[in-house]
Parts: sequence; structure tokens; C-alpha cells
Amino acid sequence: MGLLFRTFTKAPRQWRRGYSSHSDITASAMVYSEYGQPSQVLKWHSYRLPALTSTTVQVKFLASPINPADVNMIQGAYPIKPTYQKLSSDDDKLLAVGGNEGVAQVIAVGDQVQDLKVGDQVVMANTGYGTWRTHATGPASDFQLLPNNKKVSMIQKATITVNPCTAYRMLKDFVKLNQGDYVIQNGGNSAVGQAVIGISKAWGLKTINVVRNRPDIDKLRKELTDLGATHVVTDEDLGKHETRALIKSWVGENKPLLGLNCVGGKSATDMARYLGENGQFVTYGAMSRKPLSLPASLLIFKNISFHGFWVSKWAEVHSKEARYQMLEDVVDLMSQGKLGEPKWTQVKWDEESMKTSVDQGITGFSGGGKQVVIF
Amino acid sequence: MGLLFRTFTKAPRQWRRGYSSHSDITASAMVYSEYGQPSQVLKWHSYRLPALTSTTVQVKFLASPINPADVNMIQGAYPIKPTYQKLSSDDDKLLAVGGNEGVAQVIAVGDQVQDLKVGDQVVMANTGYGTWRTHATGPASDFQLLPNNKKVSMIQKATITVNPCTAYRMLKDFVKLNQGDYVIQNGGNSAVGQAVIGISKAWGLKTINVVRNRPDIDKLRKELTDLGATHVVTDEDLGKHETRALIKSWVGENKPLLGLNCVGGKSATDMARYLGENGQFVTYGAMSRKPLSLPASLLIFKNISFHGFWVSKWAEVHSKEARYQMLEDVVDLMSQGKLGEPKWTQVKWDEESMKTSVDQGITGFSGGGKQVVIF
Repeated sequence: MGLLFRTFTKAPRQWRRGYSSHSDITASAMVYSEYGQPSQVLKWHSYRLPALTSTTVQVKFLASPINPADVNMIQGAYPIKPTYQKLSSDDDKLLAVGGNEGVAQVIAVGDQVQDLKVGDQVVMANTGYGTWRTHATGPASDFQLLPNNKKVSMIQKATITVNPCTAYRMLKDFVKLNQGDYVIQNGGNSAVGQAVIGISKAWGLKTINVVRNRPDIDKLRKELTDLGATHVVTDEDLGKHETRALIKSWVGENKPLLGLNCVGGKSATDMARYLGENGQFVTYGAMSRKPLSLPASLLIFKNISFHGFWVSKWAEVHSKEARYQMLEDVVDLMSQGKLGEPKWTQVKWDEESMKTSVDQGITGFSGGGKQVVIF
Repeated sequence: MGLLFRTFTKAPRQWRRGYSSHSDITASAMVYSEYGQPSQVLKWHSYRLPALTSTTVQVKFLASPINPADVNMIQGAYPIKPTYQKLSSDDDKLLAVGGNEGVAQVIAVGDQVQDLKVGDQVVMANTGYGTWRTHATGPASDFQLLPNNKKVSMIQKATITVNPCTAYRMLKDFVKLNQGDYVIQNGGNSAVGQAVIGISKAWGLKTINVVRNRPDIDKLRKELTDLGATHVVTDEDLGKHETRALIKSWVGENKPLLGLNCVGGKSATDMARYLGENGQFVTYGAMSRKPLSLPASLLIFKNISFHGFWVSKWAEVHSKEARYQMLEDVVDLMSQGKLGEPKWTQVKWDEESMKTSVDQGITGFSGGGKQVVIF
């Protein structure tokens, strides 16, 4: 490893095992050193950013959302555990940076780095890289190049890796669908659900979207139809005889071979019954907090298979080329207006605003939409 | 279609649409013309066997078991519906022949038949071909050639297509297992469960076998261990902390990647938790009559997939060559003593014995073992 840097000519003042010497940049981050309620354990931390080395890059964060999984992770209730580390040579404590999703811009590149250049926009290569911070220095492999497309908003870029990519992969990886084929999903108005509607429409697929019944159901029905939903059905109606007849009149012999479930419980079982023989049923959430209950006949006689999908795991076991290919497709759909910006609310980048917003973050997309920090 | 026969030189006396002219053989069968309790709807039927044609074969049944699915089918509670047909030119009623499994011997072959010869032993190519009958005439494609192996008993041959083949396929088709890998199953003392134990042992796989607790559990434990079971655990113990520690001490990091379930309910959920990441869980029965309840975390974070297996469907969608390959492997295991004869009780081939035995047949393998008619 050389000590030559493209943007910093001064040699670092010191090297210590475990962290780099620092740059002239002062970074700030929302950090925690133990699990708990976000507002209790999150702290504002300012520190001198570690210096660039020949194999690292420096990035400046542009925008990072607050996702439900971020809250779970701080509570210690997420299967991916945070990495506690010294963020700077000045730190005496091991700290984890909150947040998992976000978009950043490369501001400096070590001379041995091949994949990234100054000005590139990046997302995180893997889940667990804290994104509630202004800057970071790290190996190029921590970051994933984002296709350069000016028609895609910063909010879309900051929220691309979780919801749109989940929708994209689930529509692509479990069953070969042809133009005109049906997909059935619950949580049709969730962020992933909306992305499923948009991508399906772009690909010529039809969607049956199950949503919770509510007083203003017609408004929601119209919103989802405007997004491209073929049909909208309430969870209460799903198990009814007349709904079975109705859905049969839509799909005929061409029953859906893909079901997407983020709810669980009765709604999920009811939905599984609409799948055709050899169908694939993919669970990516459990908003009802109830398990999935499966009559054996669906498994044995209809040969329906039940899978899970977790985009974090997908990203972990796939190459940067595969990730880039996906991002390129999703960015294309966004730039063509086929996949819109999520509803969002800006969160101010200060300690109190962050604490309050992260405590609220478990409810995710509801209310004022996705909470996003703009740095 | 010619009118030349290898074994009958006299031309058939008459041709009528829907059935052949008859041979000199008087066949008998247990038939039904409507769904209901077996003893209520099953009738003894004697009829003149249809004559051979150039494209058909005639077989004489040697032995046929009474399986639980046979009873379900007569009750109208099985996804495969019986074929009602005229069995002979003398019949004025459409009749279905009971039974789905059995072994027969070819006694005559039409001159255009390529695949079978007199003396060959066959099983049924597909589920739904009535096997509670002494003889049948039909196209060669109704029958599946059985490898000729004198070391395999008639009982083994009569019961080969359902239980041993189910065990064989489930161990082969869902995950690539290597020597020393663990498989976990419930219903470890069922007929399929015992075949899983035998085949696993022959292939160098280790098994954790879950059984219902009972007063003479040590006797059962010994029986299964003698068959080749690596470990036997009761369903009551499966969810306990000390069992988790025990199983962990057996498998170490090499967690089972295949789980086989014929029980459902809590026992099945408890079992699924023992699978390693990316494990496959296959349901082929639901003896508890309870659905399979799946926490979303098993699907999403452990990426376990849940499938069903139904050997009838497998046979339907695979070629006779694929079926023969499987039968050859299973017959080999039997002839090497690695897959034993099931416990069985003979059923007399007369109307009253059959009615009584079929009514009892829903309990399947329990008590005196598999009920088998020897013709």
C-alpha cells in the first residue's frame, strides 16, 4: 500500500493500528454504542474524518432515509448487527453509525482505486454501513457505483436500494413471467408495493393489489390505479366467494404464478389460494406480525413453493456487476417516469430532529411519507 | 390399428365404440360408481376382460395394497378423481376400480407393442389406475416396466411406487446433499419415514427423526436406529431448550439443509427452526391435520424455502425412462437389503374382506402394517 494520494499531497501524520490518520474534514454522524430506543441511545458525534489512503475513497453523503429496519437495528432486533468501530483516531469509544441506505458523492479517490472517480454518485454496497453521517472514508468495495442519470432525483437515488430493488428482484427472480401475466400482492400501497405496480406496468404485467380496507378506500384505489395497478381488492373481500368469482373473471385460466407478501396472517393465506399450480409465493415482510399459515394442500397438491426475499442478502451474495445491472434497469425505469419518487418529508440534520424522527421511523412509509435527511 | 394378436388368433366378435370385445378371461374388481364410505359404495364386480388389441397389453395383478389415498379417493376427497368407465362390453354402468398402487405381470402383448413382453412385471404408470382387480387390458403406456430382480419381494414391488419413491425423490430433488450431511424429518416411523432412513443410510446421509412421544418410545427408538436412523427425537422434546443444545452438539455448523414434513402444526414449525440458512423444507403429508405455520423470519432472514411433494404429480410429468431410472435405483437398494419390506397384513380377495379392510385403510401403516391383497 503506497502513501500517495490523488487529492491530498501531505503525508498523514500518524498511523495507528485499527484506524487511519485524519483528513482536514470534520464529519458528523448519528451514532450509538448500545442497543435501545433510538432517542435514548443515538448521539450526535463530530470527528475528524480519517485521511484518504491509496486504496480508499472519500465520500460526502447527499441524502439518507430513515427506514424501519434502521430502527430495528438500533433496537438490536435485526439479524444484521451493527459494526462498532473507532470512527477517528481521536475516538476512544467503539461506535456504530445509524442508517443503512443513502446516496453519496465521491470527493476523493486513492491512486490505486480503479472503480470510482471523483464526482461519481454511489450507494452502499451492503446493508450495515451507517449512512446517517456527512462523510466517510473507506475501501471502494464499501460503495456501489450508481448509473449517472440526471432525470432521477436525489430522493429517488437515496431510496433506490431497498424498496425499488426489492420489487425488481422479486418480479424477476422467482418465476418467468410473460406479457399479460398476473402478479398478486398484498401491501399494495407500501413503498415496495408501489414499486411492484410501476415495474409490472412497465414490463407489461398485470397486478392484483390487496390493501387494507379503510374509509377512503376509493381514493387509495384511484391512487394505485393511477400508478398502474390493474385491480385493487381489500383484504376483507379477499376471502369472500364473490371476490373469488370476480378474480376468476379477470384472470380466467391465467392464474397468477407469483404472489408477493409483506403482511402475513390470514390475508397472506387467502392470497396464496389465488395462485395457480406451481406458483411461487414470496414473503418479504410481516406487517401484521402474524405467521404465514399454509394448508398442506397448497404445498402438496397445488405445488406452490413459499420463499422469502431479503434484498440485503441478495446484495451480499451478488457481484458489483450484478448490482450495477439492476441499478441501471431501475434508474432507467425512473428516468422514463415509470417508477416515481416516493412521498417523502425532509428531516433536519441535527441531533434533536434526528432523535425524534428515528423514534417515529418504525412506521415507515405511512403519514407524511418516507423521512429523508438531506445533508 | 391391425387386428392381429400374438396370443389370440380368433378375431374379436364385435367392436363397439368405447370398449373392446372381450377375451376368455373372467376378471373381478372392487368397483364404485359414486363417492361415499368405502363399505357402502364398493361392490364386487365380475366381468369378461376386454380382448387384446395390437396396441394393448393384458396383465394379471399379483398384489395391491390399500393406501390412505385410496380411501380418500373413494370418499371424493382426493385431488385426483377416479375414471368412471365401462369395464367390459357386458357392462351397462360406468364404474371406477378402487386402488392406485400394485404390481402386475404381463400375460399377453399386442403385436405393435414395443416396450413390454409377456412375463414382465409392471407397476402403474400413473395414479388413478384401479389396482383392486385381477386383470386389466390397456395401452402399454398405462403400465411402467419394473426392473427384474428376484431378490425383491412381491410385497416390496406392490408398495414401491408410493412410499419408497416419495422418500427417494425428496432426498434427491430439493437440495444437493453430500456424505455426512444431515436430513431432519418428522413422522420418522411412517412408511415414507422408514424409507428415508434406509435410503439416507445407504447414501451416507445422517438423519434426525422426529416421532410422537409414546409409552414404549425406547422400543421405537431402537427399531428406527436398527433401520439406520442416526438420531431419534420426540415431538414434545423438539421445541425444548435442551433439545436445541443436543441437536447443536450433533450437527455443529453442519445444520440440516433438508427437512421432510408429513405432520404439520407445531411439530413442523419446530422442525423448520433446525434448518440451516438456505434450507429446503418439503411437506408431503399433514397427519396432524393442522396447517404449517411459518414465522416470516424463517423465510426472509434464513431464506428457507417451503415446498410440497406429491409423487403422483411427479410420475405424471416425468417420462417412463425417468421413472424406470428411479425404480432401478430403488430396486437396487431393496435387493441389497438397504430398504426393507414394510410391515404388512394380507387381505383376502373377496367382497366382505375388502370392504372391511378399505374402511380401515385410512389409518394406513399403523397397527398390523400395510394391508395388501394378494391375488
